[in-house]
Amino acid sequence: MSERFVYADHAATTQLSPKAVEVIQKLSAEEFYNPSAIYGKAERARGIMDSSRALLAEIIGAEQDEIIFTSGGTESDNMALFGVMEASRNIKKHLITTAIEHSAVLLPAKKIMSQGNAVTLIEPDRKGKISPEAVKKAIRNETILVSVMAANNEIGTVEPIGAIGRICAEKGVIFHTDAVQALGHLPINVKNDHIRLLSASAHKFGGPKGVGFLYIKRGTPIKPLFLGGGQERGFRSGTENVIGVAAMAAALKDAVEHMEEENSRLNSLTAIINSAVLSLTDVVKTGDETGRLPGHLSYVIKNVSGEALVHFMDMEGIAVSAGSACSAGKNHVSHVLQSIGFDENEAASSVRISLGRENTAADAHYIAQKLTHIIRHIREISL
Amino acid sequence: MSERFVYADHAATTQLSPKAVEVIQKLSAEEFYNPSAIYGKAERARGIMDSSRALLAEIIGAEQDEIIFTSGGTESDNMALFGVMEASRNIKKHLITTAIEHSAVLLPAKKIMSQGNAVTLIEPDRKGKISPEAVKKAIRNETILVSVMAANNEIGTVEPIGAIGRICAEKGVIFHTDAVQALGHLPINVKNDHIRLLSASAHKFGGPKGVGFLYIKRGTPIKPLFLGGGQERGFRSGTENVIGVAAMAAALKDAVEHMEEENSRLNSLTAIINSAVLSLTDVVKTGDETGRLPGHLSYVIKNVSGEALVHFMDMEGIAVSAGSACSAGKNHVSHVLQSIGFDENEAASSVRISLGRENTAADAHYIAQKLTHIIRHIREISL
Repeated sequence: MSERFVYADHAATTQLSPKAVEVIQKLSAEEFYNPSAIYGKAERARGIMDSSRALLAEIIGAEQDEIIFTSGGTESDNMALFGVMEASRNIKKHLITTAIEHSAVLLPAKKIMSQGNAVTLIEPDRKGKISPEAVKKAIRNETILVSVMAANNEIGTVEPIGAIGRICAEKGVIFHTDAVQALGHLPINVKNDHIRLLSASAHKFGGPKGVGFLYIKRGTPIKPLFLGGGQERGFRSGTENVIGVAAMAAALKDAVEHMEEENSRLNSLTAIINSAVLSLTDVVKTGDETGRLPGHLSYVIKNVSGEALVHFMDMEGIAVSAGSACSAGKNHVSHVLQSIGFDENEAASSVRISLGRENTAADAHYIAQKLTHIIRHIREISL
Repeated sequence: MSERFVYADHAATTQLSPKAVEVIQKLSAEEFYNPSAIYGKAERARGIMDSSRALLAEIIGAEQDEIIFTSGGTESDNMALFGVMEASRNIKKHLITTAIEHSAVLLPAKKIMSQGNAVTLIEPDRKGKISPEAVKKAIRNETILVSVMAANNEIGTVEPIGAIGRICAEKGVIFHTDAVQALGHLPINVKNDHIRLLSASAHKFGGPKGVGFLYIKRGTPIKPLFLGGGQERGFRSGTENVIGVAAMAAALKDAVEHMEEENSRLNSLTAIINSAVLSLTDVVKTGDETGRLPGHLSYVIKNVSGEALVHFMDMEGIAVSAGSACSAGKNHVSHVLQSIGFDENEAASSVRISLGRENTAADAHYIAQKLTHIIRHIREISL
């Protein structure tokens, strides 16, 4: 094993930002009241909830009462899909989503279909882009909800959610975006982008695992997933995760404050790796060249198993991923890569490198060197 | 405001145990990998998940693969009820629960009924006890699930879950217990008590808010609430809350290791308060005298508004609650007190004092003195 360690899997999860650590260390040593209690000390816990909510709302251009705290991206996505479909009294119900969504959207969509509703899956182009025109054409009278991710986790492609949101607004259809991969990394404003529901997960932008939120525009008909004590104004029962919420807000604030400089820094780092990798033969960069997540690189590398590549990189102390880490270690072929036109073999030959805050130019050079070396090595031994 | 502060609302939430704080402080400064990733460093995150799971399983007498991590008691309760009812292929489905359950069980039961299923609510006796015989009589051929809490949050009554579990096992009905209030405070063994599903919430036994678990006995048919990445062997998708899980396990270990000595200490403290309060006229202790949660006291105090009492106690620096804090500050009349025979007026005259680890004998004397003084004072001013 290498003594050097370079974490380059930020699309899977990020290190806690120093601001989030600060909040966790401070509050775990002192704060413990139940925000729903009526005595004075509980006021402090409520105050932390309120100020965190206000901060998050401000960052995405929402009102404070439009932020509902959840346990993370999966819960937010599930609530958006199940909750909106359940709330509609239409006899015929139609849901539009895309073939490249995260499984936390795709599997609820599948279940919604199995319950007798119609579901349309929009196919992306070869770069992974969803066409707003295709969404427009798919909308019918009975369409309740359109769900399109803000950016894809596997191939980094940023979707035209503003244009899609505008179309949905014009057609009177609810628009949900899974912004788990994008928030904190790209500017998102729910008003400008005509978003009525937005899912977020703290651990993708320097916050803790196990906490996230769902933005719900006022007046959007939606049923809760959890029933109980009526916290979050009835939208999400369960004692509030005060420390997690406060740490999430601190992390997102920190991320957006440094977003611009950080993204141009990340672009210079990915350029180092990209030029080295693309100098090899039979390597295809997946996703969109320009409209992609900062720090995100993904390739299909002919005759190189993605899994083997991850293990060889691991031996050199570099953490990257083969496709998505969100599938609990399961060895499945990427539905995203298949959607953008790769066959099974090609999809199994993919690697994702996602850089983040603590990565340096030296890291990028180290990754470039080791990655090209390993690709050549794997190709040699498999000849 | 008083300079002294005595927290006596441990049934609402508890302070983080020192062991949990230690875990949080340590891991938040270093641990951040996604346990689903396949490189070496992620092994550590998986190791933390595994050892926490093993520890929790051992404490309740379960197998390691029978523990599913959730965001807390509400999610666990909702999953138990919705998941088991959905998994059953019976045409007629019947659920049995009790009139004194937490709303995280009662509201799902109500929804299950609204979906066309039969639901029986067992009424408790005056002490809040659920009779195993009544459960036995209620079981029909189409009964899928019996859900009875291990101990009541408002009146502290401990339920005969072992006897109820045995009946369910004999009848081939799945038994779920909401052990949110009991775990870490009373010995619970899922094998001895014939429990097939058990809900737990970390923040009730010194762990963090926003994390809990659901014990699911092997082979129990249950559908997940969340669909997505397939974490927790498909039972609960969503990136794992590694730090929360580790802190929860440390907290429960700490709680059960000190349970016996702590409970006898708490009994001596509650005796101090109890004898002082019961020396007043027109005060009724609610719940069971002997079979109740350690440190838990609850009263109906004639001609004294519970809410006013909480505020006056707050002025003296004592945090107690009027009924349950789990209803998000809403001013509703306790369904539990009404179930055990109190009218609306009486139910609005209730107070709950729940002591915990950091309370001392001096605290108990202070509470006894202030509480009796305030009760007399409120009665005088309202004459």
